[in-house]
Amino acid sequence: MDKTVKVVVDAMGGDNAPAEPIKGAVEAVRERKDIQVVLVGKQELIEEELKKYPDYPKEQIEIVNASEVIETAEPPVFAVRKKKDSSIVRGLMMVRGGQADAFVSSGSTGAVLVGGQVLVGRSKGVERPPLAPLIPTAKGVSLLIDCGANVDARPSHLVQFAKMGSIYMEHVVGIKNPRVAIVNNGAEEEKGNALVKETFPLLKACTDINFIGSIEAREIPSGYADVIVCEAFVGNVILKLYEGVGATLISKIKAGMMTSLRSKIGALLVKPALKDTLKTFDASEHGGAPLLGLKGLVVKTHGSAVAVEIRNAIFQCVQFKQNGINEKIAQRLNEDTEKQEQPS
Amino acid sequence: MDKTVKVVVDAMGGDNAPAEPIKGAVEAVRERKDIQVVLVGKQELIEEELKKYPDYPKEQIEIVNASEVIETAEPPVFAVRKKKDSSIVRGLMMVRGGQADAFVSSGSTGAVLVGGQVLVGRSKGVERPPLAPLIPTAKGVSLLIDCGANVDARPSHLVQFAKMGSIYMEHVVGIKNPRVAIVNNGAEEEKGNALVKETFPLLKACTDINFIGSIEAREIPSGYADVIVCEAFVGNVILKLYEGVGATLISKIKAGMMTSLRSKIGALLVKPALKDTLKTFDASEHGGAPLLGLKGLVVKTHGSAVAVEIRNAIFQCVQFKQNGINEKIAQRLNEDTEKQEQPS
Repeated sequence: MDKTVKVVVDAMGGDNAPAEPIKGAVEAVRERKDIQVVLVGKQELIEEELKKYPDYPKEQIEIVNASEVIETAEPPVFAVRKKKDSSIVRGLMMVRGGQADAFVSSGSTGAVLVGGQVLVGRSKGVERPPLAPLIPTAKGVSLLIDCGANVDARPSHLVQFAKMGSIYMEHVVGIKNPRVAIVNNGAEEEKGNALVKETFPLLKACTDINFIGSIEAREIPSGYADVIVCEAFVGNVILKLYEGVGATLISKIKAGMMTSLRSKIGALLVKPALKDTLKTFDASEHGGAPLLGLKGLVVKTHGSAVAVEIRNAIFQCVQFKQNGINEKIAQRLNEDTEKQEQPS
Repeated sequence: MDKTVKVVVDAMGGDNAPAEPIKGAVEAVRERKDIQVVLVGKQELIEEELKKYPDYPKEQIEIVNASEVIETAEPPVFAVRKKKDSSIVRGLMMVRGGQADAFVSSGSTGAVLVGGQVLVGRSKGVERPPLAPLIPTAKGVSLLIDCGANVDARPSHLVQFAKMGSIYMEHVVGIKNPRVAIVNNGAEEEKGNALVKETFPLLKACTDINFIGSIEAREIPSGYADVIVCEAFVGNVILKLYEGVGATLISKIKAGMMTSLRSKIGALLVKPALKDTLKTFDASEHGGAPLLGLKGLVVKTHGSAVAVEIRNAIFQCVQFKQNGINEKIAQRLNEDTEKQEQPS
């Protein structure tokens, strides 16, 4: 079957490795025939772990040995250069060499970002590959682009983020004509820092995206836009504050429910419904964050990812590959480059 | 009594004017003898509103007529220049002229910020006056400095923010030796955008603040630092996302509780406890945001502020004035300026 997508999964990455990445891989191949998973990491550990699962389509999972592990605390550039036999470097090299379509890792974000750019390489025309997680909103999910390592981005980078994000939301998440907004410190057009002020008219002039203007941070959780464009420092603040406010608020609510007998009884009754609700507002339910604009696909899952997240990230890779997202991105951005190069 | 603090309250500012600002003023003077409130705005409206309160110490409230109102949608610089007889301009001019110690407004943030800087004027040695709201955390409150109009700040501005914020937290909020952290996209010292990388060593070198390093946005709601330093664009994103995530999560939880009969009964039982909990995590409970580093005090309350917030903001002004915060700030920053000017 020529539509099979080959995904390398970092069996050593994240807080729950190797158990959860391997469980996620097994669940994925049990569910779909068109996936080939490569588990990369310490062979004996992986083989030992796989013994837990007697019945899964064995021909859909292979193992590639990698003797080293990059720890999250290691300086990324140095680690990627030094640990050639790490699961991250081995996995990325397979994507680079065309032996695999995608790489999924819950390991060091820095190493995945650096390795993705350096080892897999940027697609032609892409200035900077953004990391773009899906964040939960009142209405579903939005794409936050960029949360990566590209701090101090230039306006032209943000314009590319808007285009790549639109393609992703339309063809992977399935939102027609996605609304694109730029994060700003006010709704009025004259608001913004130097970067936003310079980027705004460029986005407004794009005919191939559905640009709806500025978005204030207050409106992000309400689902006001599908593609939320910002530079990586701001994106990082948004992503992490989302988690932080959610966690603190939920723990406060839980503690609040324990203050009286009356509320304790109430808590027991609301618990199941509440659990379902909070699940829909949990970023980890939505698979991983793709690093867009590379020659292959690299997906970063949360450091605390469990099997369901890994499985979803693998499915995301299939969707991505089968819909030819990279080809669409390359085509769109290269059209722009050609336009710029032509004398008008 | 020479310790009486004179506070001008913008009776026309915010969504609930004039009713709530006036109610807040009445509550404040009923509670404390050492406050003199000036209500600035349309005289007939204010007089009419005050009739609702037959018993309050009338000698503690006076009215200053202002025939114009600056709307939130108006371009701030233009509005402040044009509407000389607006409540905001009149109020700020009283602080400038020394007829009042402080000005409290729920009106146009832009106009209050611009007016504060232009009409009241910066204290000697202050490069940029930051707007510094208190935000709720798991442990109490933290000061987020700057959320104002100073986007694209320089490292020296951020250092001043750290010092002013420390003085405020120590002498107004009462936190001894407040922990100061700079918002960053990672905990490691080598992380950051150009601004943070340049500011970090400067903060580290300050002997007069308790600098604890970087703070990731995830740690802000947990109360990891007392003074959270950032430039205004990032501060604005943090402040507004705080509100946005909180509001969306709470409405999701409420909806979730309505999904079954079981959870509906539970919801009735937890409601009172939950209400108390959410109150402690409500930014509006903590009075207003001071614009620090001016010759007088200017406090911006939330656009949707109600009486309790106005009353708290008035008390905040008293605390501020009676503790000589402006004098402390001027002294601290001028010591720095003198040090820089002396040849070493």
